[in-house]
Amino acid sequence: MISVHLERGVVSVENIPPPSRPAGHALIRLLHAGICSTDLHLQRGYYGFAGTPGHEFVGEVVACDNAQWLGKKVVGEINLTCGNCDFCAKGLGRHCPNRTVLGIVRHPGAFAEFLTLPERNLHEIPPRVPLLDAVFTEPLAAACEILDQVRIPSGAPVAVLGDGKLGLLIAQVLQLHGAQVHLYGRHPEKMALLSPLGVASHLAAPNAPQAAYEFVVEATGSSAGLEQAIALTVPRGALIMKSTVHDRVSIDTAPVIVNEISLIGSRCGRFPPALDLLARGKLILQPLIQDRFPLADAPKAFARAAEKGVLKVLLDN
Amino acid sequence: MISVHLERGVVSVENIPPPSRPAGHALIRLLHAGICSTDLHLQRGYYGFAGTPGHEFVGEVVACDNAQWLGKKVVGEINLTCGNCDFCAKGLGRHCPNRTVLGIVRHPGAFAEFLTLPERNLHEIPPRVPLLDAVFTEPLAAACEILDQVRIPSGAPVAVLGDGKLGLLIAQVLQLHGAQVHLYGRHPEKMALLSPLGVASHLAAPNAPQAAYEFVVEATGSSAGLEQAIALTVPRGALIMKSTVHDRVSIDTAPVIVNEISLIGSRCGRFPPALDLLARGKLILQPLIQDRFPLADAPKAFARAAEKGVLKVLLDN
Repeated sequence: MISVHLERGVVSVENIPPPSRPAGHALIRLLHAGICSTDLHLQRGYYGFAGTPGHEFVGEVVACDNAQWLGKKVVGEINLTCGNCDFCAKGLGRHCPNRTVLGIVRHPGAFAEFLTLPERNLHEIPPRVPLLDAVFTEPLAAACEILDQVRIPSGAPVAVLGDGKLGLLIAQVLQLHGAQVHLYGRHPEKMALLSPLGVASHLAAPNAPQAAYEFVVEATGSSAGLEQAIALTVPRGALIMKSTVHDRVSIDTAPVIVNEISLIGSRCGRFPPALDLLARGKLILQPLIQDRFPLADAPKAFARAAEKGVLKVLLDN
Repeated sequence: MISVHLERGVVSVENIPPPSRPAGHALIRLLHAGICSTDLHLQRGYYGFAGTPGHEFVGEVVACDNAQWLGKKVVGEINLTCGNCDFCAKGLGRHCPNRTVLGIVRHPGAFAEFLTLPERNLHEIPPRVPLLDAVFTEPLAAACEILDQVRIPSGAPVAVLGDGKLGLLIAQVLQLHGAQVHLYGRHPEKMALLSPLGVASHLAAPNAPQAAYEFVVEATGSSAGLEQAIALTVPRGALIMKSTVHDRVSIDTAPVIVNEISLIGSRCGRFPPALDLLARGKLILQPLIQDRFPLADAPKAFARAAEKGVLKVLLDN
């Protein structure tokens, strides 16, 4: 099968045997996969990654233990958990210390004709949800995670910093949750994509309002973003940290302490809330797809995804 | 009256008229005051402070509007609030944007023979609480603030990093709350002061346990402390930031986000929980007093308080 290989910054395409299917796992034929900023970080050498990347996908089950899955179009939770630890017992397998992670930590990823995942990780795509929407399930779940961590009342103003892929999804999730989202970004044409949902957009500027929001989401992907986000947050407010910046970040902690701000790290989320939201059919997703490439053109796809300002790039099988 | 003056790093003693008493305020004769790390920071020029510092005190009311206060021994909340803003309405006058702060922000402090505070800021010292215990009310309230921000279940293990003045108070407050405190510090003789309360002590070491505590309090006062504290915190755990470090702090945000840790800035607290705790009579406070000076010797007192490893230094009137 065709499989993307990432090592020492180089994206290549290999022809390798399909993966063997362990008991309890499904063998899944890839349909579409999304390139995420994390994939680009892996390419830059973070985590010393070498192997098949990819964790955003939709696919079709072609072999499985439980016949109910056969032929189903699915998405899959990316954390492969032990099922026995305290975190797993609390439904927080995403923090299982024994986990592997699809395309990130010791489990071959989705940028290949076939992949495997435990059947318990699978979710059938709800009826009438287009596959090209469902391919956003994983990053949507990461956006929905905010609502699992912080109670945001209906009608509350929320600032989202960053109009990249993740920022645009977070803004939609929170707006559809009932918050009044103010998106701060640098690309009016991207932010305009969300105006049908009523998301207010603001050009990020050095003189942004100070201490203006009780809820702030930092999704700029830049090390400067965190300090801007702190300045935007009112005393006793909550700042959700969504940017995994792979550099050291220097901040002045004094305003965090004086204003008693909570900085809340936020990563992956559960899939069901994302699938519920997809089923509502109100998300604006396909306009975020800026390019599509066949798997065999993965090197071109990665180069395209790394271009400044480019939103989602897909790999198709 | 004798009053301490701080300007451009120099501590001096002046003889000035007592402050005039605005309506609604009490005139308070100082009995004892404590030198806090914030006072030492002000001396180093933070906030561009110039004036009379001091915000930890016990005193006696010598003039007031409401006769009930006359002659009473009191402590006083340090934030002078507007009473009209949203924060004041929520009982969070500590975050009132119009506030002045005793000895810190535009209100002359307690290191003087007399000071003024609004009568509504005053609390009578509970019977049988020694004045030399009550002088710790303000930093104890700051320690109690943690329990207003984070629900720590009885019996929960909590790591407190730092065996300075504030760390020793926080460890006591949390232990008496029912948590199982593990104090990490560099001074066995200081940490041993708390062993009668059952506080476990550990020498801080580069190879401290990783991801070991659901609740971690950072009170080292050092910029390295935050990163050590992050490493100690389990996924989804809470890290309470108590050190107002007056330098930029460089951290790797990746573990915060990957482990979804909450970093919670924490500053001043309400006085009533601290006074309730003082009334229980179980705190170990006077052993933390390492030196006492008359007001007129404030320059010596500041120098002593700034010596490495010195705990509380008092000014007496």
